[in-house]
Amino acid sequence: MIFKEIIKKKRDGFELSKEEISFAVKSYTLGQTPDYQMAALLMAVFLKGMSYDETLHMTEAMLKSGKTVELSLEGPIVDKHSTGGIGDKVSIVLAPVLAELGFKAPLLAGRALGFTGGTIDKLESTGLKVELSAEEIEEVVRRFGFSISAQTKEIAPADRKIYALRDATATVESIPLIVSSILSKKLAVNTEAIVFDVKVGSGAFMKDMESAKELAQGLVEVSKLYGKKAAALITDMNQPLGIYAGNALEVRESYEALSGKISQDLLEVVSSLTGALYFLTGRGSFEKGKREAERVIREGKALKRFKEWVEYLGGNPYPEVKAKKLEVRAPYSGYVAGINGEELGWLIVELGGGRKRAGEEIDYSVGLSFSKKVGDRVEEGELIGEIYCNSGSKKEFIEKFLSAYTFSDEPTQKLKLIKEFIT
Amino acid sequence: MIFKEIIKKKRDGFELSKEEISFAVKSYTLGQTPDYQMAALLMAVFLKGMSYDETLHMTEAMLKSGKTVELSLEGPIVDKHSTGGIGDKVSIVLAPVLAELGFKAPLLAGRALGFTGGTIDKLESTGLKVELSAEEIEEVVRRFGFSISAQTKEIAPADRKIYALRDATATVESIPLIVSSILSKKLAVNTEAIVFDVKVGSGAFMKDMESAKELAQGLVEVSKLYGKKAAALITDMNQPLGIYAGNALEVRESYEALSGKISQDLLEVVSSLTGALYFLTGRGSFEKGKREAERVIREGKALKRFKEWVEYLGGNPYPEVKAKKLEVRAPYSGYVAGINGEELGWLIVELGGGRKRAGEEIDYSVGLSFSKKVGDRVEEGELIGEIYCNSGSKKEFIEKFLSAYTFSDEPTQKLKLIKEFIT
Repeated sequence: MIFKEIIKKKRDGFELSKEEISFAVKSYTLGQTPDYQMAALLMAVFLKGMSYDETLHMTEAMLKSGKTVELSLEGPIVDKHSTGGIGDKVSIVLAPVLAELGFKAPLLAGRALGFTGGTIDKLESTGLKVELSAEEIEEVVRRFGFSISAQTKEIAPADRKIYALRDATATVESIPLIVSSILSKKLAVNTEAIVFDVKVGSGAFMKDMESAKELAQGLVEVSKLYGKKAAALITDMNQPLGIYAGNALEVRESYEALSGKISQDLLEVVSSLTGALYFLTGRGSFEKGKREAERVIREGKALKRFKEWVEYLGGNPYPEVKAKKLEVRAPYSGYVAGINGEELGWLIVELGGGRKRAGEEIDYSVGLSFSKKVGDRVEEGELIGEIYCNSGSKKEFIEKFLSAYTFSDEPTQKLKLIKEFIT
Repeated sequence: MIFKEIIKKKRDGFELSKEEISFAVKSYTLGQTPDYQMAALLMAVFLKGMSYDETLHMTEAMLKSGKTVELSLEGPIVDKHSTGGIGDKVSIVLAPVLAELGFKAPLLAGRALGFTGGTIDKLESTGLKVELSAEEIEEVVRRFGFSISAQTKEIAPADRKIYALRDATATVESIPLIVSSILSKKLAVNTEAIVFDVKVGSGAFMKDMESAKELAQGLVEVSKLYGKKAAALITDMNQPLGIYAGNALEVRESYEALSGKISQDLLEVVSSLTGALYFLTGRGSFEKGKREAERVIREGKALKRFKEWVEYLGGNPYPEVKAKKLEVRAPYSGYVAGINGEELGWLIVELGGGRKRAGEEIDYSVGLSFSKKVGDRVEEGELIGEIYCNSGSKKEFIEKFLSAYTFSDEPTQKLKLIKEFIT
């Protein structure tokens, strides 16, 4: 096959065959096709799109570039994936809850890059071991019913190489390329069902409903074409989720949440995702799953499991936070109208809690807390949040925190959290 | 400036500034930007287009990557550029005619690549020196009023590097990229006026009027934005031009043409291009220029000049043709309806008269002749053309020659040669 002809075909808006896509991915991953030809193809894909079938072929080709993880476990093996947002500690709370309800949840998670955090970094603030082999994952899931570990390098190496090229060539924000990148890793584990938490809003990668919906549908449809049970929730990210954002702070919040002291929004997302998995695996209705998750959390039933899991892997389930607290107070009276998560995310990066480049060191203790959310009334001088920091200009941090907030004189509406359920 | 941001801007359909385009071309040419980023930008340009202003900026940036040729010559310095076709020996006939009429015509020409021939290869069949320095060009034009020499490597090196990348990434067929590539070389010489011969039809790169017109307008408008007098003729290439195609054969045909024995179609193109240059330089009307060229040709006035020019540069003005002739005869009676020039062009490449890759050796003697053209009546067994070849399967050559011809039972129309004059 001639790579240039494949570029030409996509450039002219035609659908590529399975063989063509497979050749393109394979020859590029093996170094037989130069970066510049792949870059031209990626830009053509960016501008001309790919059908669900093409996206499936791309996913499968990247998946086949590496190893798959075949877990021999009893019970419905399920997975969850979030597209990322500010304060999104959902996986840490959800996995033990799912285990408590009889699911097997071997989650593979990522690290922070850009303005959103990464579950693996958060967990690392406890000191636990995050890199597990397939055998270790199996053993951990047998013991605790769930596991959260880092994507191994053996899974979908083609995706890593292609993603680096996309990052350098302005071809990241393409729905079919995002879908195939996510699924090439997610479909590598023999799970029965997968639920996607597609975040939408100022604190997410997808800023508007239209693109969030397109992404959610792509993830669900292509997963189904692959033969997996799949559904997606589109959830609001126009303000941070929960009360804290920052690595150790979010683990502590998760610990509290699992003990029953959970914020309403975090509870709603965790329980809705559980509902989706009940629905998908045929264990019951969405509502039933939701109620069961709420019950487990309210009664603190999954906390013991979580604590033992962290300790088994050598970590401290309630990590220390060594940072100074700065108070942020409302500059005038009014109602909170919006909280820009992306701005807060970059503030956390600046505090040292995130990464501008892959591989950078992280200060696990820094972060933010939020005591007022959209729809809340605030009085001038009232505490609206805190900044946990170790170095840098306090004045600047407070200014940046405040600039992420929009206030209104008129009462504002609370935000609807679960925007759509796509099956 | 950040290259990725430039890619993103073009990808999203915005117009790039002069500074951005200049940075992109310069940083790529200097090796500061990797091939893959330029490839992504080229594909974005291919699919999103460029305005005339952007094309001008691109042209200027490439032009500035190399040297310009400043000729100190009296009289209107003019240039002509053809987009290439089968049997297109126009430059070889036109340049001495222009000189005879008092123009200074320092033409820079190219080599064969793909299915069309190149003026430089044709001239090399005479043995003349084709690589001239700026000083030599000036001297030759002073002596003969014209010069045809090869593009030097010092002119627009950025274009060579970018063209090679376009060739590998399926981004060749983009009007703004074609325009800037042509003009980055054409505008490097201090000519007063330039006329473009944009070929359209089966034997040209532009197969349809719409794209030919777009290219012609691009060439003319961007040249004008640069401050040059410019016009374009769109001329038919749905059959070969003149009677021969092949390197030495076309030089011999040009020699005959300059002696007054010229085919009607070749005469019409040469004289119309002269007319366009009369019009552009204000020397008179299009019609006047056309008549003057016809007179010079009919009276054989430019032949001596041509002969002396070739001999001055060490060549033989009527090169030998050492090849066997194969006759091609009509398989049945009818009218010639079409002659596919691209097929004939590839046949010449196969005979050894062209190149599949840059740098390949050429057999100057091989080629084709055409005794019947579109609109002509042919009887079964009548000679329609000849193949000049030195090796290979005669049967196959004849089959390929014939397969380029379409015959009709009904009388067919002669083709209109000059389709449009764009100023």
